[in-house]
Amino acid sequence: MTDMILYSYFRSSASYRVRVGLHLKSIPFTTEPIHLVKDGGVQYQEHFTEINPQQCVPALECEDGVITQSGAILEYLEAKYPSPSLYTSDIAKDTFIRQICQLIACDIHPLNNLRVLTYLTQELEVNQNAKSTWYQKWILDGFKTLETWLEKSPHHIGRYAIGDNVTMADLFIIPQIYNAHRFHIDMSAFPILQSIHDLCLKHPAFIASCPENQPDTPADMRLKDLTKENN
Amino acid sequence: MTDMILYSYFRSSASYRVRVGLHLKSIPFTTEPIHLVKDGGVQYQEHFTEINPQQCVPALECEDGVITQSGAILEYLEAKYPSPSLYTSDIAKDTFIRQICQLIACDIHPLNNLRVLTYLTQELEVNQNAKSTWYQKWILDGFKTLETWLEKSPHHIGRYAIGDNVTMADLFIIPQIYNAHRFHIDMSAFPILQSIHDLCLKHPAFIASCPENQPDTPADMRLKDLTKENN
Repeated sequence: MTDMILYSYFRSSASYRVRVGLHLKSIPFTTEPIHLVKDGGVQYQEHFTEINPQQCVPALECEDGVITQSGAILEYLEAKYPSPSLYTSDIAKDTFIRQICQLIACDIHPLNNLRVLTYLTQELEVNQNAKSTWYQKWILDGFKTLETWLEKSPHHIGRYAIGDNVTMADLFIIPQIYNAHRFHIDMSAFPILQSIHDLCLKHPAFIASCPENQPDTPADMRLKDLTKENN
Repeated sequence: MTDMILYSYFRSSASYRVRVGLHLKSIPFTTEPIHLVKDGGVQYQEHFTEINPQQCVPALECEDGVITQSGAILEYLEAKYPSPSLYTSDIAKDTFIRQICQLIACDIHPLNNLRVLTYLTQELEVNQNAKSTWYQKWILDGFKTLETWLEKSPHHIGRYAIGDNVTMADLFIIPQIYNAHRFHIDMSAFPILQSIHDLCLKHPAFIASCPENQPDTPADMRLKDLTKENN
């Protein structure tokens, strides 16, 4: 069987989620970088539109065809390669995990992705300041809910979001915090999220998957000593 | 066991998804209407914030506590009441179902929900015309991809989105088309989506769940003869 191909962009947080899933499950894959900004966006070019008509990353090419939507890709990997699992086998805990993933994937991330920010600037002529306020608002609203949920939930026991193993929840939380850092969100109001983040960034699957360590990471954004620092 | 309580708003498309799931699986539940507009939004009042700190619907109160996020609620129902299933037991088909659900839940719906439209109007002072263009853009972009996927996919065979039974995909497609109608989207470019819609609206679970037939539907929006018409 040939390796799966992950169409990815180093800074895409949805691609980041999938990379962690692939690394956690030790699934061999090849990264095919799709630059979302250069030349007006490689995702809009004909050859990639053939692969993913939605013109976005991530997309995973595998023996079952091309799969898109990060959550669908991760559920596919979970079904095909069940071990180690991204869930807990406990219905209530797994429901809480899904709640966290969906709050991030539905209520935070879509409002702040490239196509929406571009529309705000180009079509609605929103200035830089108002765009930053927009970006920060949806992250702050979402993180406030997440922190409250984690604080009150009987399922947040252990070192990661749910228990002592990485779950799907962590795969969604960490890339969203990466985005929060990019937009200068003060994380001091979210100590639980911050502690999960600090722990995950010491995990080999997250180190291999983080935006600073990708084949398409520009030289000046690489953290060359990240592995050393975190091991 | 007491009935589950579904905190719902008749016109909320995420609540609509969950209602269909409950009806399809014949799970008894009580609707507790939360008016999202009246008095500045009942979802922001203290008693509801206690129930759902995220201050939105749907929320399902059941023996495992309060569950929020429509997709997480539906996965919970699927795990607890597996029959009839919302999936197919075929990994590739189920992945395609999830792709459809997530395109709607992540890439269309979040851009057009009440809190975002309110922010556009009140904070960014976007006028009515530009707001409609915004709304229509994300639906049209998403529907274009969905229609292409369905047209090209080996999994779209049968009368519903995937096969001859209702699946999770239909639970997400139909409420999104309801929203499209509200915002005067011309559906003639999406014949596959339209045919799935027309078929589902004859199904008892969709008839019982549609916005026109809820306990909190205003009198002038009720379709009193909908059941008759569709049976």
